[in-house]
Amino acid sequence: MYRSHNCGELNASHINTEVTLAGWVQKSRDKGFMIWVDLRDRYGITQLIFDEERTPKAIIQEAKLLGREFVIQVKGNVIERSSKNPNIPTGEIEILVSELTILNKALLPPFTIEDKTDGGEELRMKYRYLDIRRNPVKNSLIFRHNVAQAVRNYLSKEGFIEVETPYLIKSTPEGARDFVVPSRMNAGQFYALPQSPQTFKQLLMVGGMDKYFQIVKCFRDEDLRADRQPEFTQIDCEMAFVEQEDILNAFEGLTRHLLKEINGIEVEKFPRMLYDDAMRLYGNDKPDIRFGMEFGELNSVTQHKDFGVFNSAELVVGIAVPGGNVYTRKEIDQLIDWVKRPQVGALGMVYCRCNEDGTYKSSVDKFYDQDDFAKWAEITGAKPGDLICVLSGETYKVRPQLSALRMELATRLGLRKPNEFAPLWVIDFPLLEWDEDTKRYHAMHHPFTSPKPGQLELLATNPGDVKANAYDLVLNGNEIGGGSIRIHDKKTQSLMFDYLGFTEEEAKAQFGFLMDAFQYGAPPHGGLAFGLDRLVAILAGQEIIRDFIAFPKNNSGRDIMIDAPAFIDQNQLKELHIKLEGLDK
Amino acid sequence: MYRSHNCGELNASHINTEVTLAGWVQKSRDKGFMIWVDLRDRYGITQLIFDEERTPKAIIQEAKLLGREFVIQVKGNVIERSSKNPNIPTGEIEILVSELTILNKALLPPFTIEDKTDGGEELRMKYRYLDIRRNPVKNSLIFRHNVAQAVRNYLSKEGFIEVETPYLIKSTPEGARDFVVPSRMNAGQFYALPQSPQTFKQLLMVGGMDKYFQIVKCFRDEDLRADRQPEFTQIDCEMAFVEQEDILNAFEGLTRHLLKEINGIEVEKFPRMLYDDAMRLYGNDKPDIRFGMEFGELNSVTQHKDFGVFNSAELVVGIAVPGGNVYTRKEIDQLIDWVKRPQVGALGMVYCRCNEDGTYKSSVDKFYDQDDFAKWAEITGAKPGDLICVLSGETYKVRPQLSALRMELATRLGLRKPNEFAPLWVIDFPLLEWDEDTKRYHAMHHPFTSPKPGQLELLATNPGDVKANAYDLVLNGNEIGGGSIRIHDKKTQSLMFDYLGFTEEEAKAQFGFLMDAFQYGAPPHGGLAFGLDRLVAILAGQEIIRDFIAFPKNNSGRDIMIDAPAFIDQNQLKELHIKLEGLDK
Repeated sequence: MYRSHNCGELNASHINTEVTLAGWVQKSRDKGFMIWVDLRDRYGITQLIFDEERTPKAIIQEAKLLGREFVIQVKGNVIERSSKNPNIPTGEIEILVSELTILNKALLPPFTIEDKTDGGEELRMKYRYLDIRRNPVKNSLIFRHNVAQAVRNYLSKEGFIEVETPYLIKSTPEGARDFVVPSRMNAGQFYALPQSPQTFKQLLMVGGMDKYFQIVKCFRDEDLRADRQPEFTQIDCEMAFVEQEDILNAFEGLTRHLLKEINGIEVEKFPRMLYDDAMRLYGNDKPDIRFGMEFGELNSVTQHKDFGVFNSAELVVGIAVPGGNVYTRKEIDQLIDWVKRPQVGALGMVYCRCNEDGTYKSSVDKFYDQDDFAKWAEITGAKPGDLICVLSGETYKVRPQLSALRMELATRLGLRKPNEFAPLWVIDFPLLEWDEDTKRYHAMHHPFTSPKPGQLELLATNPGDVKANAYDLVLNGNEIGGGSIRIHDKKTQSLMFDYLGFTEEEAKAQFGFLMDAFQYGAPPHGGLAFGLDRLVAILAGQEIIRDFIAFPKNNSGRDIMIDAPAFIDQNQLKELHIKLEGLDK
Repeated sequence: MYRSHNCGELNASHINTEVTLAGWVQKSRDKGFMIWVDLRDRYGITQLIFDEERTPKAIIQEAKLLGREFVIQVKGNVIERSSKNPNIPTGEIEILVSELTILNKALLPPFTIEDKTDGGEELRMKYRYLDIRRNPVKNSLIFRHNVAQAVRNYLSKEGFIEVETPYLIKSTPEGARDFVVPSRMNAGQFYALPQSPQTFKQLLMVGGMDKYFQIVKCFRDEDLRADRQPEFTQIDCEMAFVEQEDILNAFEGLTRHLLKEINGIEVEKFPRMLYDDAMRLYGNDKPDIRFGMEFGELNSVTQHKDFGVFNSAELVVGIAVPGGNVYTRKEIDQLIDWVKRPQVGALGMVYCRCNEDGTYKSSVDKFYDQDDFAKWAEITGAKPGDLICVLSGETYKVRPQLSALRMELATRLGLRKPNEFAPLWVIDFPLLEWDEDTKRYHAMHHPFTSPKPGQLELLATNPGDVKANAYDLVLNGNEIGGGSIRIHDKKTQSLMFDYLGFTEEEAKAQFGFLMDAFQYGAPPHGGLAFGLDRLVAILAGQEIIRDFIAFPKNNSGRDIMIDAPAFIDQNQLKELHIKLEGLDK
């Protein structure tokens, strides 16, 4: 063993102990007659001291040559520090070094290994092994481990069994693109990497394994948006002989346990909100309910005057910004510019100042009177001193626009507090959603989701109205999990595939095994999957997933540290019965 | 919730309770006026009773239609059984059914869902979801979960952090073949699936995460031997600032914990054996030491007479078979045939009977006298009543041959007791092994393994003699884990790549990131990986890995349940910039 103690554990009680430490040189200060070195490892920092009077000359000489990030081993005596540092656990002591061994030298790192580093994103990714030495990254990885352990121990105690499902499975065109893997032994054929273990966990239910979970990597070959990874981790769960209520309770229990165990926070029973209400009140299926600013629909109180913009709008909707009346005209103009950015896409914004004296001042004063504005204020819940922001247009466009504005303003107003946790179930999602590109309905969740009882008939006449036994778990405005009660009989499943545009042959080729399984005694079942990367980030009061992944990929799906993907040699291609083509650009 | 209790928990204390159960019809017995149904779920079996006197007629009618594996829900009263079954926990009670709901019908399963099934391997794989309903499979999966949980909790308690490393990495031709994944976004380039997280765990050490583990899927595109899977699970571990001794102690601790926690067995300190001794005494680098039958090398006592076969052999070596003198001539001839099978490949076998009266009778009586045989007996440890089996030839061939015979005889003699556990460290493996095909040395473990101190110089002159800081953990004749102390400086690593035939460019292209990392302060480190599939099987007293994998693949790497791999459509290929070729056979 290269050390008797780690760099985080020595304190006054160890004074006069001979110890051996090993770690990295964080920094050194050379006063000529005296050298201090901060020695760092995973557990902390311990100060080493070399001085002319007490340290052999040869060791002093060597200590003078130590550079940042050198790996060293020292033996020495724990002594009391003259100037103590109360900010670190080892701040009362230092090590008077009697032996020094350089285990490995180090080049000067390309960025500083400090909590606040001078390294840019790209550089830190390329040298991720150095980035991991920094406390923020190291602690994020340890935090992730603690969350995963808490999940596993809780679910195990609740009788769930973690079952590993295969990674080399079959490609199914439904949903996002699959990553595929050519099979050498089955020439011309391909495995696919799972987008989720969905069908396997359903088969485990058919197999009687009635409480399943798995923390598992999943893969999606999507054009990456910011903070999306081609490989990501799910806490995948499924239960048999349950109804929606049972699933919600089971995973509310898990989430409550995590908030308690990890964050030390007790949360009451999670509120539930219908999908339709979430859209109406927040313009969003994952509302952040840590703050109010609920939408007020203003059609009835705006469409009786001559303001054509509102009169022709499908939806006129506003929010009250608390204290927003202090905004200057310039600040309000900037807000208007903000909603007109292409990322948001509003055509404009109407506002109404709610003065402290109970009067109103609006950008549409010439169309509406004080009584009108009083109604706006009533509907949006605006109080004197607030600002009402109103957008209008097609419902499906204007809701996300106002939602974006609501989130932006809440962030600016400090209403999205990182240490406050507001979980929420959003339930009764639509079964289908309309896709403009393909001009047909797609499964909103996935094709295995069951419609609400009695709604199957609606499929033929009002497909967009059919509600599903589908639910999302939302935490602080982020979807951290989602799931559904599944179809468990062959007839309904066939009908669903048919409705989603699968031919009978396609359905059989891709999901025949599942429909076969449903014929041999499938129990009612359902489940939920959490996105672990996001869950961990949010529990840590953060939102950037990448910081909680040891070796993330960049937005082109590249690992720039190992430089992957990469070209492979011709022999490998030949063995796999493939060749490259279409690379002539 | 579809049930108030599960099918394994009701007993006499519940008599007169109204309960709701759900599960599968295991079987039913219809006596006309009375019907018994065994209802099964993951937790057990509970007997249901329907009788003419107490059950409504409509329910009886429905109960008569229940087939095997129907999924049903029943409500009823827990009553005392008239004829109790002491073999199952619920054997004292039965449920007098008052309500019956058929949740799902079932076709007759293609094999019986019993502990001993009539289904063949292939059929059971195709309907794996039905196979999982059987106790042996279900219990194996639960056992696996318990082992994995025990591993995670033990290592976490010991300060190890589970870090997820990426699955989409870079192909490296060293070692077995990689599975590769074409990248759509990086045209013409490929990811590879990891054969192990080796380089990533080393980078975590460079990153200061000094105790790492991960239970992780690994992938090898090998021609599958029986009981090899293209995807398999490792318990992957690494530590920094450690020497070999520290690693052995750390993972001996884990293994001892598992034997105690899972098997209830206390094992003393694990013995250690040099690789050279393992080969000499057992002909094998993973000896089963639950029994003796150690090899006796007989060159000195056989090569002084006129028996040319022995005189010309590099090695003459024998084992004493306890009580083997009872074998008839015919049985011995069958043994000789057994060692001559191509799977073993011996050219013949000499034997010597050790009679109870102290005399010897051998197949080579005409070359050797009783004094010679007495020496054979002394060296092999044979006692009166034993049989000495002797093989001869080239050392590298004859050792595995005799090892195979030793294992076969031990199995026949019942010496390989499934409930006895004999762990063993085999240490000081050679660094390199000669490969006849390529006529050069390959890394025996992998190219990151460090040679023993001071042996680096031997590389140039006697490469085959260089010993590595490499070790295997053996349990009952199976390698359950293996690892090494790694090289942690760029110079040695370059030298090793050079020696293994990498050009400088190749080394840089494939492992440049690792050698770069070594320049920025790499600590001494080493680790070990357990094969979880095998470990679980052995802890369960079994050897067939497949039984402990939920959805295994067959020997052609196919999942015959979902029928993967499969052909994918032209558009997918086109998006990936590849086309098929060489499929004209």
